[in-house]
Amino acid sequence: MTQDGAARLKIKAQILVGQRIAIGPGKADLLDAVEQTGSIAAAGRTLGISYRRTRDMIDTLNQCWGAPVVETEKGGSSGGGSRLTERGHAVLAAYRALENALKDTADSHAAALLGLLEPSEDAR
Amino acid sequence: MTQDGAARLKIKAQILVGQRIAIGPGKADLLDAVEQTGSIAAAGRTLGISYRRTRDMIDTLNQCWGAPVVETEKGGSSGGGSRLTERGHAVLAAYRALENALKDTADSHAAALLGLLEPSEDAR
Repeated sequence: MTQDGAARLKIKAQILVGQRIAIGPGKADLLDAVEQTGSIAAAGRTLGISYRRTRDMIDTLNQCWGAPVVETEKGGSSGGGSRLTERGHAVLAAYRALENALKDTADSHAAALLGLLEPSEDAR
Repeated sequence: MTQDGAARLKIKAQILVGQRIAIGPGKADLLDAVEQTGSIAAAGRTLGISYRRTRDMIDTLNQCWGAPVVETEKGGSSGGGSRLTERGHAVLAAYRALENALKDTADSHAAALLGLLEPSEDAR
């Protein structure tokens, strides 16, 4: 029964390397935010994550993949900034493509499951 | 780089009704265990979950779906026992079917992402 809120299907995809999460919903959103803000600190603020945790996530990302995914330019007239590397763009694009494929599959397979939330005359 | 462990893809599907998880990997495993052991208490022990938490999960399951998914027979010569209802079997089957469909999709879409874990000559 759905009287206490709409039913929704949630799908989470993660790539684990040993004990570490190489990519998942949170790190993908962080990469998006770095790209949009041009700054690791600003990206963390946008997502409501502490600077310490944001840095840890970036360090894990840069260590897990075959090449760094975020690069930071020190100083310069613009005061530096961070952005995705080519590898970073590729990781984010491949992750979003996987998420979209999973969402399409879920949309076409979840109807049977969601239908069972409703009472039926022949229940049990 | 994968020197600290094999990379693996993890997919989690949940149905949320309001704030409650109507079904997810843990509750699906619990339904399987109830079916195999014929007992809520034994199912919890099999999964290493406290009796209190096991009961809470069963209560949530029985409240979220359109009909109870686990039924308990009180007393009798066999001392009672618990089993899945018709609705319970249907929920578990539909959830496993969704999981399998997601796994097939993931297997056919994750290669691009997993390949990016490896260093390449044109990295960055």
